[in-house]
Amino acid sequence: MTKIKTSARGCFITVEGGEGAGKSSNLAFIQSLLEAAGKPVLFTREPGGTPLGEAIRELLLGHKHTGMADDTELLLMFAARAEHLHRKILPALEQGKWVLCDRFTDASFAYQGAGRGISAERIATLQQFVQGVLRPDLTLLLDLPVETGLERAGKRSDPDRFESEAHLFFEKVRTGYLQIAAREPDRVRVIDASPGLQVVQDQIAEVIQGYLDNLNG
Amino acid sequence: MTKIKTSARGCFITVEGGEGAGKSSNLAFIQSLLEAAGKPVLFTREPGGTPLGEAIRELLLGHKHTGMADDTELLLMFAARAEHLHRKILPALEQGKWVLCDRFTDASFAYQGAGRGISAERIATLQQFVQGVLRPDLTLLLDLPVETGLERAGKRSDPDRFESEAHLFFEKVRTGYLQIAAREPDRVRVIDASPGLQVVQDQIAEVIQGYLDNLNG
Repeated sequence: MTKIKTSARGCFITVEGGEGAGKSSNLAFIQSLLEAAGKPVLFTREPGGTPLGEAIRELLLGHKHTGMADDTELLLMFAARAEHLHRKILPALEQGKWVLCDRFTDASFAYQGAGRGISAERIATLQQFVQGVLRPDLTLLLDLPVETGLERAGKRSDPDRFESEAHLFFEKVRTGYLQIAAREPDRVRVIDASPGLQVVQDQIAEVIQGYLDNLNG
Repeated sequence: MTKIKTSARGCFITVEGGEGAGKSSNLAFIQSLLEAAGKPVLFTREPGGTPLGEAIRELLLGHKHTGMADDTELLLMFAARAEHLHRKILPALEQGKWVLCDRFTDASFAYQGAGRGISAERIATLQQFVQGVLRPDLTLLLDLPVETGLERAGKRSDPDRFESEAHLFFEKVRTGYLQIAAREPDRVRVIDASPGLQVVQDQIAEVIQGYLDNLNG
């Protein structure tokens, strides 16, 4: 998406981050910052609340269809994304709303790509198919050490298992996210999510304020 | 798929055709010809009998999700195809079975592409994503005038409606199929399905025999 907008179109902001990064409370904080600046905000997350999206999500997450082919999983994931995009995100942007979305395609690259080893090129093919040139205007990546995140998320009850498989998986996911940020520093702003909430929110407020100033300037 | 095969791999044969073309009885006839030539045949059709494929088909055909975005529909269709391919068709071919499939990707180009006006380029992108270079080794297109086909299928009870919308749709589907055959005459053999069954089956037997002779020769 180009940086030059028609005055009517809203901005598309996404928030990404792994386990225990404090996504929920920080999403609410971002929404309050945007609304305080007079922006009408639509908050959403995949699959976006359409009945079809929910039905696809059920196929993806349900235990009934374990062992589906990687291609099938990617196609289903992007089918849900296409529906979310065409039915909810794009219409809202066109109405001038700002869309704040809890995770988007960067999560596919981080979790399915870097984490599970599915080819980034194949994910990019479907990204291009579904989104064309559309990308979020701004992405906040809440980054913190995997160990800290898992402790905060209360997921260290079985240390042996987490020390190995799951820990390694989340390290790969973190690396995947940081690689995207390194490639697209203008779009993706890394927020250090390891300090206390106040310090994290100070960083977020600075990024959002800078983004708004830049749009108005 | 190249014409040069390892001796172990089976052949992938598809049968395409519109309403009233006699697909079912001719599929059974083709299976009997192949089996008479000593080929082990797996007969299948989309979504291929996997529980996930059936669930996706339900999303596509059910009346619950009418009005889904075109992209969503294509992605779901190819998700079902990916599962059918990876779980059923490819394993059978690798085991040396001949796979006889009632409709495959040509039907997407004919029905969704030519019939409903979805971009052939977008269908081709997903074909490439899911199949790579895999194409059927041989496709029999059962072709006949739309009017004849609709009469045979007993679908002319409401002539007014069929004279206009549906008739036009099926004309476009037929044209779409014939365009594929014109572009790929080596793979797609057109069978004139308008005469009586015996005459149609004589043509089919000639094509299948020619194909088998060519493989052995």
